[in-house]
Amino acid sequence: MTTININADMGESYGRFKVGNDEAILKVINSASIACGFHAGDPTVMANAVRLAKENKVSIGAHPGFNDLWGFGRRQIQMNAKDLEYMISYQIGALNGIAAAFGMKVTHVKPHGALNNMAHVDAEYANAIARGIKAVDRDIIFVANVLSEMVKAGREQGLRVAQEAYIDRTYDDTGAMTSRKFPDAMIHDKQQALNQVLSFLNEGAVISKSGKKFPTRIHTLCCHGDEGTGVEVVSAVRDALVKNGIELKTLPEMELS
Amino acid sequence: MTTININADMGESYGRFKVGNDEAILKVINSASIACGFHAGDPTVMANAVRLAKENKVSIGAHPGFNDLWGFGRRQIQMNAKDLEYMISYQIGALNGIAAAFGMKVTHVKPHGALNNMAHVDAEYANAIARGIKAVDRDIIFVANVLSEMVKAGREQGLRVAQEAYIDRTYDDTGAMTSRKFPDAMIHDKQQALNQVLSFLNEGAVISKSGKKFPTRIHTLCCHGDEGTGVEVVSAVRDALVKNGIELKTLPEMELS
Amino acid sequence: MTTININADMGESYGRFKVGNDEAILKVINSASIACGFHAGDPTVMANAVRLAKENKVSIGAHPGFNDLWGFGRRQIQMNAKDLEYMISYQIGALNGIAAAFGMKVTHVKPHGALNNMAHVDAEYANAIARGIKAVDRDIIFVANVLSEMVKAGREQGLRVAQEAYIDRTYDDTGAMTSRKFPDAMIHDKQQALNQVLSFLNEGAVISKSGKKFPTRIHTLCCHGDEGTGVEVVSAVRDALVKNGIELKTLPEMELS
Amino acid sequence: MTTININADMGESYGRFKVGNDEAILKVINSASIACGFHAGDPTVMANAVRLAKENKVSIGAHPGFNDLWGFGRRQIQMNAKDLEYMISYQIGALNGIAAAFGMKVTHVKPHGALNNMAHVDAEYANAIARGIKAVDRDIIFVANVLSEMVKAGREQGLRVAQEAYIDRTYDDTGAMTSRKFPDAMIHDKQQALNQVLSFLNEGAVISKSGKKFPTRIHTLCCHGDEGTGVEVVSAVRDALVKNGIELKTLPEMELS
Repeated sequence: MTTININADMGESYGRFKVGNDEAILKVINSASIACGFHAGDPTVMANAVRLAKENKVSIGAHPGFNDLWGFGRRQIQMNAKDLEYMISYQIGALNGIAAAFGMKVTHVKPHGALNNMAHVDAEYANAIARGIKAVDRDIIFVANVLSEMVKAGREQGLRVAQEAYIDRTYDDTGAMTSRKFPDAMIHDKQQALNQVLSFLNEGAVISKSGKKFPTRIHTLCCHGDEGTGVEVVSAVRDALVKNGIELKTLPEMELS
Repeated sequence: MTTININADMGESYGRFKVGNDEAILKVINSASIACGFHAGDPTVMANAVRLAKENKVSIGAHPGFNDLWGFGRRQIQMNAKDLEYMISYQIGALNGIAAAFGMKVTHVKPHGALNNMAHVDAEYANAIARGIKAVDRDIIFVANVLSEMVKAGREQGLRVAQEAYIDRTYDDTGAMTSRKFPDAMIHDKQQALNQVLSFLNEGAVISKSGKKFPTRIHTLCCHGDEGTGVEVVSAVRDALVKNGIELKTLPEMELS
Repeated sequence: MTTININADMGESYGRFKVGNDEAILKVINSASIACGFHAGDPTVMANAVRLAKENKVSIGAHPGFNDLWGFGRRQIQMNAKDLEYMISYQIGALNGIAAAFGMKVTHVKPHGALNNMAHVDAEYANAIARGIKAVDRDIIFVANVLSEMVKAGREQGLRVAQEAYIDRTYDDTGAMTSRKFPDAMIHDKQQALNQVLSFLNEGAVISKSGKKFPTRIHTLCCHGDEGTGVEVVSAVRDALVKNGIELKTLPEMELS
Repeated sequence: MTTININADMGESYGRFKVGNDEAILKVINSASIACGFHAGDPTVMANAVRLAKENKVSIGAHPGFNDLWGFGRRQIQMNAKDLEYMISYQIGALNGIAAAFGMKVTHVKPHGALNNMAHVDAEYANAIARGIKAVDRDIIFVANVLSEMVKAGREQGLRVAQEAYIDRTYDDTGAMTSRKFPDAMIHDKQQALNQVLSFLNEGAVISKSGKKFPTRIHTLCCHGDEGTGVEVVSAVRDALVKNGIELKTLPEMELS
């Protein structure tokens, strides 16, 4: 029987600045990647996200980003690998500190925004992230874009890697997500999202807009709760997956091979 | 045989902004309170502080402060107790994340600057800090000013409390440190510092400038490495303590009663 | 013929963090107080606010706050008067820099949140703000809560002072706004708001919830665009004022005596 | 008679974090580029820098950088051109706000660190900066690296451009400064610095380490006050220039052609 995980980013509010719809998205996912205070997410926002995740039996991970509230972590920053490595360990630890109050623990890490984009193609960044994860806890799962340098880096460091494809993002002919600069980067239509997911799983591949296939195992599907149509799209996909006999699991329950 | 601990704050640089003299002070102390990124201390600065502490067999603690780089955590900020509690857990966790890379762990927490001053007299702040510590790890020692609300709060939460007096600060007739607003707040003369410490230990009391005695057990002596005369003063005090047959220990080695 | 001004705060988004409904509120006010990057408002948000204000023939002012994005400027911070004075000049200048691109200029200053609350009762803070305004441009109008230390400080510094009452806040028996800690701090009902405004203008006084009168001239009425009911409430008040023969003007057009 | 300007960056402390030696460097320069709060420089630090500049009859300019205290503005950040343009206007305005208290005004702008490096080669960044300057005051002089995109952008926008070469940096064969990654990026020896400056002026060119010549007029010479040898090096260069009959002027006094 096929198993898969659905994850989403959350805890991306900051003080009085509200982002996303955590309560709704938590009802339809299995694992939550929680912002850790650098691009979004203050300690109280993080605590609320952890508490809600626990109530919904959703596993939690850290969603570290660049220290850039203005850019919401979506601006590329050139930093040295050692600073990056420690920045990752810091953010994982910070979330573990908050999670402890709820008897929870960080079980995965997924980089945010521009950091994720850079580490997709940059082996030095990918390795720094992997080392930053390993330093804190070598049982933490590295959630990495399929076909990215992060997959390689995570395995080189001996980490378990969950290969991730997006429910609501299209792919270009390099096997990467279409840049948000282009209007067709996001999928807002639930039937289109569902078709993409099922074709990925049936073909055992990520498939670009033009039809190019990149064979890969997919362990986790990511969706965006903060988009207007996000919850609706992921709900539809989730229901279809279950109907197709696919079992949904949290990341620590997944067999990652 | 009497035992005591000497602690100092460190890791208070930030990026290219350098503060303090961590390498020198680490040679004369037993426990280090490391800034956690809110008032000072970026992830790399924290990592360097942890590594140096380890090399010097010095135990490490978190030194959480207000999120105020401009004010270096020395400006009072009114925040609600829940935000404060989570802010404490966040900073402890962040340092644990960094420390893990070096096989180290946070074994004490000491609030920084204005937060420490406020929690000295404000039971709500003191309790929020104690809860924030306990949430992360109930074995962490709360380093609290002698005679402060923090001592009470730590004990109420079932934490081990290390009562702290300063080597290089004078005390006023409330039993609190003389405010930094006054010229005689800091002790720069090593003989004066040594006399104060020995009188505190001999009398089993903190003694104000005017001679008022506040009986209390003192477990740890704090000094400032970033003052011009800091290392010299604490070295002299340390040597005199040893000569007087007092044994120096890290905080986790101390018997705290 | 009576004249009055209606002002509102705006430009309180920050990067991807959206706050308020500037476009709607600008249609019903005469003067806008624009956040300057310390508690909210990045340079682009500020530029958009200025452009919209210009399009709506609304005069602009600086809305300086504490450097506290997490607390949205609503947490009291103890800072020294000189730092505060320069912090005010900095924020006014920053907005003038942005405004220049649109041929606009800062013509008033109104402190934000906790800074406003503190300066209401603290003469040192009030004077530091007045000096910070005067240093930049002595023609800038100081928008100050009626009956506050700011009114005195502004006049002492020779600034023009616009005395302000709130459309959607109640007053307590000290003549200050009811603290946001209490449920009746905000007025969400438009009839209640209208009644309050008309009674203030008719009586030439601010009147507390219990009926206590504080005689004072009111030059400007403040409203909150970011509250759910804000635009509706202020629209109703505005229409009623016009119907009552009261003329609405921008702050620089007001006679302030 | 040849005239030239000597400029240096300053005001790069932040709160209790001290950087540089402003008092010493101000005695040997003609124009000061003052950090504006984004990579360094809080309002009080800025005010002190302005006051000292005035006392030393040194003209002042804004030294805007990325909003990155951790990286001290030395990390490249990818941002959109409009955000950058407004970020420049904001920082110029902020310094004008502070300067007004001292009867001073921003008369030049020089980008800091990574922003300067990026705009050297990136026409979009260079133009955004030029537009941001022009929006505030079209009489402000754009201090731009010789041979850079900033020179072109400044002229395209109709700004006066002061072409800048460094006293204490070497040049590579592209005509750009040697990257700080390489050990020979900085010149610490005063004779070497002096030889470089005189050869630049005599040849009317910037000359790379390998001897490649890039003919260009040089209006201003930049030096670093924060390097250990900075003040000594620039003093020696200054004295030699005067001895060689070259007149030193502030930027607004320079003829820029």
